[in-house]
Amino acid sequence: MKIAVDAMGGDNAPGAIIEGCVSALSEMDAEILLVGKEPVVRAELEKYKGMYDEDRIQIVHAEEVIENEDSPVKAVRTKKDSSLVMAVDMVKDGTANAMMSAGNTGALMTAALLRLGRIKGIERPAIVSAFPKLGKKGEFVLLADTGANAECTAKNLLSFAYMGSIYRHHAFGTEDPKIGLINIGEEETKGTPMLKEAYQMLKASDLNFIGNVEGREIPRTEADVLVCDGFTGNIVLKLTEGTAWNVFKAVKEKITEGVKAKMGALLLKKKLYSLKEEFDYSSYGGAPILGVKGMVFKMHGSSSAVAVQNAIVKAATVCKRDVIGEIESSMERYRENVSE
Amino acid sequence: MKIAVDAMGGDNAPGAIIEGCVSALSEMDAEILLVGKEPVVRAELEKYKGMYDEDRIQIVHAEEVIENEDSPVKAVRTKKDSSLVMAVDMVKDGTANAMMSAGNTGALMTAALLRLGRIKGIERPAIVSAFPKLGKKGEFVLLADTGANAECTAKNLLSFAYMGSIYRHHAFGTEDPKIGLINIGEEETKGTPMLKEAYQMLKASDLNFIGNVEGREIPRTEADVLVCDGFTGNIVLKLTEGTAWNVFKAVKEKITEGVKAKMGALLLKKKLYSLKEEFDYSSYGGAPILGVKGMVFKMHGSSSAVAVQNAIVKAATVCKRDVIGEIESSMERYRENVSE
Repeated sequence: MKIAVDAMGGDNAPGAIIEGCVSALSEMDAEILLVGKEPVVRAELEKYKGMYDEDRIQIVHAEEVIENEDSPVKAVRTKKDSSLVMAVDMVKDGTANAMMSAGNTGALMTAALLRLGRIKGIERPAIVSAFPKLGKKGEFVLLADTGANAECTAKNLLSFAYMGSIYRHHAFGTEDPKIGLINIGEEETKGTPMLKEAYQMLKASDLNFIGNVEGREIPRTEADVLVCDGFTGNIVLKLTEGTAWNVFKAVKEKITEGVKAKMGALLLKKKLYSLKEEFDYSSYGGAPILGVKGMVFKMHGSSSAVAVQNAIVKAATVCKRDVIGEIESSMERYRENVSE
Repeated sequence: MKIAVDAMGGDNAPGAIIEGCVSALSEMDAEILLVGKEPVVRAELEKYKGMYDEDRIQIVHAEEVIENEDSPVKAVRTKKDSSLVMAVDMVKDGTANAMMSAGNTGALMTAALLRLGRIKGIERPAIVSAFPKLGKKGEFVLLADTGANAECTAKNLLSFAYMGSIYRHHAFGTEDPKIGLINIGEEETKGTPMLKEAYQMLKASDLNFIGNVEGREIPRTEADVLVCDGFTGNIVLKLTEGTAWNVFKAVKEKITEGVKAKMGALLLKKKLYSLKEEFDYSSYGGAPILGVKGMVFKMHGSSSAVAVQNAIVKAATVCKRDVIGEIESSMERYRENVSE
């Protein structure tokens, strides 16, 4: 098992990326192909000399870097020697079982589409992100799509539901995952014409569809997978993160103000810290781009070393299951449902 | 000044509605027309006998009630003697300066449209809701639209921006309000074709447009007014509420667990309570339906007596300004911008 990692992508690259790779080694048996500017990567790795199994990390030199400001399509077309494109190509030619990057999301999506191609029957790949359910320790929901497709058809949403269900089952072991549709009301007559159509398709499918899920219910939803267009998914993901972080911060400031006894403040901080971990997105790994012929994982742009480590370990686990093959065969079921 | 209040609409009607009306009297000089089933309303009012100025609350009997489950258009057409429709009609015929209801949102929207009519130049009215900025005590943002129009054109969003700007200025005194566009990236090239077009229209207008606002930035945005389609607005409003409430609850449970000294727990609860008030949506009043020829306010379905009180007092203040007239004259500016 080999995982190609884009060493140059992300706000904290290459430092946090490489630290995460080194830490991941002890928690899995996969090998890592670190793709990036060799001198830079080598210098970073030097810091951990003797602290990891050097046989299991290989540096692959990439001359170029795709920046966040680069136009995705242009960057993928012109920067063929970039760490991001080279890592995707390693999945294509079988050198790696999966690749991951914390870099330019649009470029990653474009590279996955152009270099790997779509799975037959999938019109639009989806980015599938996990986030913790609030106040339900250890529980989480998968959200598909979170930004690959700003506008979607009802058929797109149905395919996201199939892919999300398969990923949830194979990556996390959930049996017959519950699928919810994000909407502005519980009744099947709510929302845009597209959402009403998607509701009927999901209801008629063999998926475990539990109905519409309103904004207020999202944080504690019963669903294992929530489907929506990429515009809504992006807003939901980022707004949840922003709101949780800000409420958390406000509460922390409020309750520690005036706490003079050091013991009291310390105790409070300890409790809050353990809670913050429960809300931590990064413990559920990277977000796969599903629907392309290869495992590609998007990591959060501001991923810390721990987030990178979690994402790599999770990816190595997922790669032991044939997620791509499962999606391919589910497309048979999907087509039957769509044509009905 | 007279405010017509639908005594029968909302989860806590008529109890909380009537309690809120009674409490509002001492904070304003307006009179209240309580519209609902007379025996029920009278019995509720009896509870407060001697505690308020009886000359300033008048009961207007309404035989019917529109329920939450009623189909909006059908209910407005067939239940002409309902408290909701009758209260709207009082605004139309000049008996009341404004009306408010915590009942069926769709029916309120429909009644406002069918009985009052649209302001010339406005294609679609918008529901404009206020919510507090997290961690910025006393600051808040107006969101337009929060549910009247699931799908919108760029022109709709521009008109929402004008109406939101005028309402912010006249109801809250904000000079030249900052307008933000909810989108999935900061750059003007982000989002759907509709949002790109709306961006350009807002940029070309004489409004104080500050650009796109991403999901993560919404809780602490610099904007005074955020515009979006009603689907997005509904999700943003409810998700923020749900997330804030759940994080708050989780933190409260965590930090009070094991706090044995009663003094310590009491102190924490007191602090948390004061913070909860900062996050309280209801202190900014009801949500006006802007774009119709009359002041109609939607109150939260689960409004408490305090929320109703706040909403009525705020509405009485707003009615002293000619918001409808201001919107009418701004439509001249709007048309110039759209035709450019």
